[in-house]
Amino acid sequence: MKFGSWAWALKRAQTRLEQAREVAATGAISGAVGTYSSIDPFVEQYVCEKLGLTPDPLSTQVLARDRHAQVMCALACAAATLESIAMQVRLLQQSDVIEAEEPFKKGQKGSSAMPHKRNPITAERVCGLARVVKANAQVALDNVALWYERDISHSGTERVALADSFTALDYMFGKMQWILDGLQTYPDKMEHNLWRTRGLIFSSKVLLALVQTGITREEAYVIVQRNAMKVWEDIQNAVEGPTYRERLEADPEAKLTKETLDEIFDPWDFLTRKDEVFKRLEGLEF
Amino acid sequence: MKFGSWAWALKRAQTRLEQAREVAATGAISGAVGTYSSIDPFVEQYVCEKLGLTPDPLSTQVLARDRHAQVMCALACAAATLESIAMQVRLLQQSDVIEAEEPFKKGQKGSSAMPHKRNPITAERVCGLARVVKANAQVALDNVALWYERDISHSGTERVALADSFTALDYMFGKMQWILDGLQTYPDKMEHNLWRTRGLIFSSKVLLALVQTGITREEAYVIVQRNAMKVWEDIQNAVEGPTYRERLEADPEAKLTKETLDEIFDPWDFLTRKDEVFKRLEGLEF
Amino acid sequence: MKFGSWAWALKRAQTRLEQAREVAATGAISGAVGTYSSIDPFVEQYVCEKLGLTPDPLSTQVLARDRHAQVMCALACAAATLESIAMQVRLLQQSDVIEAEEPFKKGQKGSSAMPHKRNPITAERVCGLARVVKANAQVALDNVALWYERDISHSGTERVALADSFTALDYMFGKMQWILDGLQTYPDKMEHNLWRTRGLIFSSKVLLALVQTGITREEAYVIVQRNAMKVWEDIQNAVEGPTYRERLEADPEAKLTKETLDEIFDPWDFLTRKDEVFKRLEGLEF
Amino acid sequence: MKFGSWAWALKRAQTRLEQAREVAATGAISGAVGTYSSIDPFVEQYVCEKLGLTPDPLSTQVLARDRHAQVMCALACAAATLESIAMQVRLLQQSDVIEAEEPFKKGQKGSSAMPHKRNPITAERVCGLARVVKANAQVALDNVALWYERDISHSGTERVALADSFTALDYMFGKMQWILDGLQTYPDKMEHNLWRTRGLIFSSKVLLALVQTGITREEAYVIVQRNAMKVWEDIQNAVEGPTYRERLEADPEAKLTKETLDEIFDPWDFLTRKDEVFKRLEGLEF
Repeated sequence: MKFGSWAWALKRAQTRLEQAREVAATGAISGAVGTYSSIDPFVEQYVCEKLGLTPDPLSTQVLARDRHAQVMCALACAAATLESIAMQVRLLQQSDVIEAEEPFKKGQKGSSAMPHKRNPITAERVCGLARVVKANAQVALDNVALWYERDISHSGTERVALADSFTALDYMFGKMQWILDGLQTYPDKMEHNLWRTRGLIFSSKVLLALVQTGITREEAYVIVQRNAMKVWEDIQNAVEGPTYRERLEADPEAKLTKETLDEIFDPWDFLTRKDEVFKRLEGLEF
Repeated sequence: MKFGSWAWALKRAQTRLEQAREVAATGAISGAVGTYSSIDPFVEQYVCEKLGLTPDPLSTQVLARDRHAQVMCALACAAATLESIAMQVRLLQQSDVIEAEEPFKKGQKGSSAMPHKRNPITAERVCGLARVVKANAQVALDNVALWYERDISHSGTERVALADSFTALDYMFGKMQWILDGLQTYPDKMEHNLWRTRGLIFSSKVLLALVQTGITREEAYVIVQRNAMKVWEDIQNAVEGPTYRERLEADPEAKLTKETLDEIFDPWDFLTRKDEVFKRLEGLEF
Repeated sequence: MKFGSWAWALKRAQTRLEQAREVAATGAISGAVGTYSSIDPFVEQYVCEKLGLTPDPLSTQVLARDRHAQVMCALACAAATLESIAMQVRLLQQSDVIEAEEPFKKGQKGSSAMPHKRNPITAERVCGLARVVKANAQVALDNVALWYERDISHSGTERVALADSFTALDYMFGKMQWILDGLQTYPDKMEHNLWRTRGLIFSSKVLLALVQTGITREEAYVIVQRNAMKVWEDIQNAVEGPTYRERLEADPEAKLTKETLDEIFDPWDFLTRKDEVFKRLEGLEF
Repeated sequence: MKFGSWAWALKRAQTRLEQAREVAATGAISGAVGTYSSIDPFVEQYVCEKLGLTPDPLSTQVLARDRHAQVMCALACAAATLESIAMQVRLLQQSDVIEAEEPFKKGQKGSSAMPHKRNPITAERVCGLARVVKANAQVALDNVALWYERDISHSGTERVALADSFTALDYMFGKMQWILDGLQTYPDKMEHNLWRTRGLIFSSKVLLALVQTGITREEAYVIVQRNAMKVWEDIQNAVEGPTYRERLEADPEAKLTKETLDEIFDPWDFLTRKDEVFKRLEGLEF
């Protein structure tokens, strides 16, 4: 599911980059104010065609910079999506979670101070660089309002902000690909973490089942929550108390049969319709 | 030419907004983690269709925020283009230029301190508000990296930054339309300002003509510039000296006939191919 | 320690706000270009004194906007520090961590879909609003380069960005104070989580102790890491294997006495010099 | 007056940089979580003293990043002030203004297409680079909310955004100093431009004088504005009509004596109290 959501987001990122390229891949050889006063439009057409560019229908001494702002915004959106993926890796690699880890190069040492520790340093770097690319969008947006038919205030900034953003994003894509290609995932740990909540994750199903026994939603909610709260308190205090199911079984007002409880407390039940979502991913092409 | 360049830029702004709307007009009723665990996908399809939305192929508890970042970026690019137009109006309305002025409401008083003065206050306001909309793009880009399948950090910001940006941009479009509809333009002043340079604006044509007399480009450049510099110095010192043409006529090395000089110093000559550009505008539809 | 680091950061935020207020609390009644051409400087002095403002030594029609940019930057830095605190709360309140939770109002219901769940929604909101305040700094920085002796492009933006930032920051401070005043902390859970690493957090002490037995640092590192890796693999695979200490005890090359191991595996040993840090906090005044 | 306003703004920029340096010039050798668990605080004190740093009263594995955000904000404010100065140069160097020009290197050629033209390319570059430094403030603000006691997401960004900002700002200061040291100013042109308004700049003094003849402010305003409007229309249409003074002299309701008119239409009268402002500048030290 997580990989799938990233795939769709990356597809959108790709579409944005393609749309931006089309808008920016424009050429102009139309003279200082764009009137072709000393040059035949044929020259522009000819040269642009050779370069794979579309002639600008109306240019001045420079191309309008909203074109480049769109490019920077597309880069920034792509960077934000990579940040989003990297953030997930960082969350899953926390010492208290450890459901996934970015690749650990063979022979790579841990921190010298803490030999056991593996920090998601590459994912952290991707998150950091995303800040740079996102902030550069601001620069490109500030470049749009040039004075008269020219002013070269944008020129120096593009050599810094635009160039850096392409470089940084390329680097980020490379690193993110390396992370995802070699991502270590721990299914048993995922299931283990799932049960750390001692069954609380099924509370919404308990609610529905209780309502189906004929009591009101409000009554059901009270039952669901009073038992949930006790389990939560045990977790907060690191006490090994009864699970949520055991507490419900002991609650005389929670009239649920063993069959119903078996069905409720089955995590696979959440995935009944997952193929619907996976099927759609088959149609995704880059 | 100026209006034409704005028209193309606004068309691009419109396209971006339409593309962004398509990406954002998405709906999701797929459960807390997007697996339709307790709801049939048909419901999502049915409701989205009624609302004119496309169902998200893979959602979590929330829609991915790169969609909204694209919307904010499209708003920011549009704001930057309006800023660009407003900047031109401000430049043309300077006391030393006065080639155009934003509308002055009948009965509107000038500043109480300076009764004669008409400042381009509406264009200035548009420029200012563009800063707000552009900065809000940053907020939307920061909203993309949500934690796990949900986190509502984006929610409060969208009520401020996204809402404000739509409101501000709508206001800016309204004001800019008012400015352009009622823009006062002064053709005689434009021509007057053109001649303030005393013919220097034709220097590139002088250069070409001199080269055609058989001297090298370097020799021609020396002649062009030494005469141009003298005219420029007169302008710098507010001295009423000879025009550029008169200086060239007095320069024995500048061997240009009267016919050539007449042709060179004709501003309309710059516009020979202008229809090419205007013709293209005919194809522009919003 | 965490609270202490926040205290120092908030103190720095306060200092910045005070410095910015001093720079911004400036007044000017000096005429349209700041030469007091039609008003005696005494008036400015007199009025400013009444208002608690310092007269600007040289103003134009408006006060220079770097003063206001400094204010916005101080607000943005303060917002970033609040974001930093809120981020910690969010991290500690994750389902897999639960070492602290923001206050849960008596009678407050959990999510309707997931009755057991308590999300750090207030801390998330603070993080979100920080994005708004930080982005507004950009607006204030863009307001500095006004044209000539006046231009009112800044005016509209300040009514939005500056006003919103004060309001948002005030709200964020209020919410953060509420969170910290009522923050629920779970010491037993903290200790429990500490031991989830099965002793790995002491690896740096093991390294030092091994070196003191006379072997080289490289040899020691190998011993430390090969045992640490096995423990880590158990964690990754949710396997209940031997603890780090037990593995070291079983490793013939790890020649550490029981006394040494007792000392190493004592978490309180990390806190020997903590009073040094707490003592310094006593000197902190707001 | 312009130079004076820049001097005060630059002084404020200097103060901000000094304050930021003091906050950032901090050192920490306090161990992985800042408790000095394996190192005596004396070491930190000793080393920091040698390096001219203040020991952080409470650090974690890294120094809190609000310190660096303050530095970046100070750089951004300084960049905005340089942008403000450069903007003035660009405004004054417009073809229709030419009251000042940035230095033109001896032997420097103008544009090859337009040999006469001198664009304020250095001032434009300063304005452009200011956008880069201002946007980088956003990056530093985003770096504040690090996770737990460490995360190195800030590290890569600081090598880009912080380093680039120092470099760019240093470059901008160098260029701006070069511009201001060699700035060409044209006093005769300034006076010439002043009179282009044909006396309208004195309208506020006319208003005051008329009121002193015993008519109401409203009546005076009507007289002032109807004559001003006619002059303005002449300017708009590039018509050489009567000056504002001549029109007032011809208006029977504008009962102003020759002595009064002489006094009103004297530009030096605006500068009567200018020394007050210049005197204050004497106290300014960097």
